[in-house]
Amino acid sequence: MSSSSAAASAATPEQPAAVWARIRLADSWDVPHIHRLIRQMAEFEKLTHLFSATESSLSSTLFPSPPPPPFHSFTVLILELSTNPFSQGDEEPKDAANPSLFRPIVRRVELKSPVEDPEAAEFASPRGGGAVVVGFVLCFPNYSTFLAKPGLYVEDIFVRAAWRRRGFGRILLSAVAAQAAKMGMGRVEWCVLDWNANAISFYEEMGAEVLPQWRICRLTGEALQGYGVEDGDRS
Amino acid sequence: MSSSSAAASAATPEQPAAVWARIRLADSWDVPHIHRLIRQMAEFEKLTHLFSATESSLSSTLFPSPPPPPFHSFTVLILELSTNPFSQGDEEPKDAANPSLFRPIVRRVELKSPVEDPEAAEFASPRGGGAVVVGFVLCFPNYSTFLAKPGLYVEDIFVRAAWRRRGFGRILLSAVAAQAAKMGMGRVEWCVLDWNANAISFYEEMGAEVLPQWRICRLTGEALQGYGVEDGDRS
Repeated sequence: MSSSSAAASAATPEQPAAVWARIRLADSWDVPHIHRLIRQMAEFEKLTHLFSATESSLSSTLFPSPPPPPFHSFTVLILELSTNPFSQGDEEPKDAANPSLFRPIVRRVELKSPVEDPEAAEFASPRGGGAVVVGFVLCFPNYSTFLAKPGLYVEDIFVRAAWRRRGFGRILLSAVAAQAAKMGMGRVEWCVLDWNANAISFYEEMGAEVLPQWRICRLTGEALQGYGVEDGDRS
Repeated sequence: MSSSSAAASAATPEQPAAVWARIRLADSWDVPHIHRLIRQMAEFEKLTHLFSATESSLSSTLFPSPPPPPFHSFTVLILELSTNPFSQGDEEPKDAANPSLFRPIVRRVELKSPVEDPEAAEFASPRGGGAVVVGFVLCFPNYSTFLAKPGLYVEDIFVRAAWRRRGFGRILLSAVAAQAAKMGMGRVEWCVLDWNANAISFYEEMGAEVLPQWRICRLTGEALQGYGVEDGDRS
């Protein structure tokens, strides 16, 4: 099937040849979906033994009250799809001059083949309108001392299985990069598994360099807790 | 020379066999020293071509007004040394029950051999009292979706050349780990160059694991800026 708009208009509503994609800031109404998406990510990475997040712990850590401004702390963007255009009214930012505000991004995406999404009902958007939550990205500020500039670190980027290899990962990562550029930040960084050649090619096509020499060190669990108890000889 | 206290009391004031080490939160008065320390770090890493920080850019990005609570944004801890005990009065936190507050850490450190510090005058502490700034650590919060918990990421840890291999790096990293444990965080993470076997051994002794398979991806410079300009088809 071609990706022309003729193909789109010929498609049935159940198997559209084009969809509207919207990326918007998450809020606490999205927590059940975020929780399910993270669990799917753990299953995909065969790391469910490390998965201990609950809806409650996600809610309290990702959506504190009052909420910090987006991109100044942990920030989740939701990707949702609809066969109809999204209404724009309720998404306009109140202070358009503030660079840290995030205007929802809407794209019309041609589908080169029909998509069957067996989880569509389970992932119905809390915003309604027949939209379906398809993926998310979680990022937060980091800092480069050499540049003396903040950046954004992408902790997770995830698209549900039914919708992969259709450009949605690129749309999500581009949204983060555009926001970092708009805010005058110096870098966007994330990690990739060294055996994941497809992901590495994709990231390099997007303009990223993979740093070959750096390794992540992690202090966690009992080894970390041990540092919390020796408090006796402080001033 | 042994590290016993007999050796300490036999030392001359110019070459003490023990010093008092204090780790405290940095403030904007420390910016000139922080700038010099970062430049030294760039020289050590042979990366001065990437160093573009100025005192002004460090000040505005690290010490905004009003300051966010420590460890909820970019946070610098200063390591300074004195041959005399530090006075405690002005360092007491106002709200001791708040786990994100940072009480200065003071340690008496035996020196197994005398130290000559040719930069001592240049690095005189802005807090006075004859103390000398010797190193720093810069950290900020990160987030684990699997744990649904914040952690701390250590961007930089640096000790001036005259004072290396005497346990000060361990004191700095332990201070970050203790704070993360106290705040109920899940992880402390940082990066190391894969050829730096001494550093890797040191970190493993401290209880960290080095993750062999993850690589850092970085989008920066013109490649990043390019994402900031295509803003036309947003909703």
